[in-house]
Amino acid sequence: MQPSDLITSAMNRIEVCFSPGEYHLYESEFDLVVVLDVLRATSAICTAIDHGVKEIIPVASVEEAIEYKRRGFIAAAERGGEIVEGFDMGNSPFSYMDPALKGQTIVLTTTNGTKAIHMARNKKTVVIGSLNNLQVLCDWLIEQERDILVLGSGWKDKFNLEDTICAGAIADLCLESGKFKADEDSTVAAKFIFRSSRDNMFAFLKASSHRRRLRRLNLNEDVKYCLTPNNCMSIPVLKEGSLVRLNHEPVEVHSLS
Amino acid sequence: MQPSDLITSAMNRIEVCFSPGEYHLYESEFDLVVVLDVLRATSAICTAIDHGVKEIIPVASVEEAIEYKRRGFIAAAERGGEIVEGFDMGNSPFSYMDPALKGQTIVLTTTNGTKAIHMARNKKTVVIGSLNNLQVLCDWLIEQERDILVLGSGWKDKFNLEDTICAGAIADLCLESGKFKADEDSTVAAKFIFRSSRDNMFAFLKASSHRRRLRRLNLNEDVKYCLTPNNCMSIPVLKEGSLVRLNHEPVEVHSLS
Repeated sequence: MQPSDLITSAMNRIEVCFSPGEYHLYESEFDLVVVLDVLRATSAICTAIDHGVKEIIPVASVEEAIEYKRRGFIAAAERGGEIVEGFDMGNSPFSYMDPALKGQTIVLTTTNGTKAIHMARNKKTVVIGSLNNLQVLCDWLIEQERDILVLGSGWKDKFNLEDTICAGAIADLCLESGKFKADEDSTVAAKFIFRSSRDNMFAFLKASSHRRRLRRLNLNEDVKYCLTPNNCMSIPVLKEGSLVRLNHEPVEVHSLS
Repeated sequence: MQPSDLITSAMNRIEVCFSPGEYHLYESEFDLVVVLDVLRATSAICTAIDHGVKEIIPVASVEEAIEYKRRGFIAAAERGGEIVEGFDMGNSPFSYMDPALKGQTIVLTTTNGTKAIHMARNKKTVVIGSLNNLQVLCDWLIEQERDILVLGSGWKDKFNLEDTICAGAIADLCLESGKFKADEDSTVAAKFIFRSSRDNMFAFLKASSHRRRLRRLNLNEDVKYCLTPNNCMSIPVLKEGSLVRLNHEPVEVHSLS
């Protein structure tokens, strides 16, 4: 079916919400939410699930993570870009590639990402996105024939550039299928920022406040990894409070451009 | 003085807040706020003051405007892009050029713009911006040596493209003076969207939700006027609840590009 065969008003929508602080303005019309925290929570979650971690339990507070740790769980905690004292892991994607974590359950709390997941948890479907699983995620989203809200984690409820770029990439790929429309200016802007930055995201993000924050922490390798599209084939999905691998037919991965 | 002579940390900041819904995340660090509602409230306000209207009293509700009208005031009211029933004027800039309005007081309520002005009213200085008074406003802002927050009115608390373009233009001109720095990703994004759209804002905005809304109302001439930089030489400022012309030294107006 060609886009021209579709009546616009009957099309599904894909829209971008920049941060949790604006979620209430957008969420009522959607029961499928994609949560993003590109630097670095959702990139780490996609990496973990792709490398065989069985499930990730996202919790909102450090206190909850400590409680799980006491009960014997592997727990990871990040605040302000750094590993919280008393934890062995934060949200560096590389730490989730450890073969010893295969088949394990990990409890995770982060500054922004786990808050956004928590906020969306009552929706029928919550999936985790990043640039790392961009194409496999979009191929799956396009098949769903449902309205989609892409929710950036932002930085303490404020807009951030890296989640907006990733949200714009998801919106762009879905819109290009001809099966979606976008009504919101936020979606138009995100798509535009993605298209302008796609050829050199790393340079584009040098002005980003969060990027500067991570640079101070010497996390350039993490940032480069998080900005690499399509090095993960998994879509984490929220099932009864845990993020697990979505079972779906594998699809051919195309290049980003 | 060259930018390189300044110590970055000692520079004043200019930041962009996309909409009233996020104002609480940004406002605490600023006592000078520029309010924008490009389509069309603040463009109309700049035009009115530039054409000799003595003062504009912004009110949040239609009920307040009706009450003022009963007491003999000239009153204007817009909701959803249209003039409210029972009023002679909405927020079309052209209606504020009427010579009969010279020296008059006008009460105004609009969907988004007067709400944003109301929200910022307790700040030490609130000025009104638009593309129409872009250069004169920026010349004045640069002279102030104060931290500046540019507040878009958005659309019902959501991000909109036209206010973001104008906010980006203001940030860009101020940053180019070398006297300001910007820390927020919202400011980086606004500046980028302005730079990408400056050569043909009308075409750029064809995807904007509000622009589509106004097109249905046949307001293309209004939109073209509102997107024309530097056809007004006045800066409206809030004084005791009224918007009046700011008295300042006239400056030479440069072209936008």
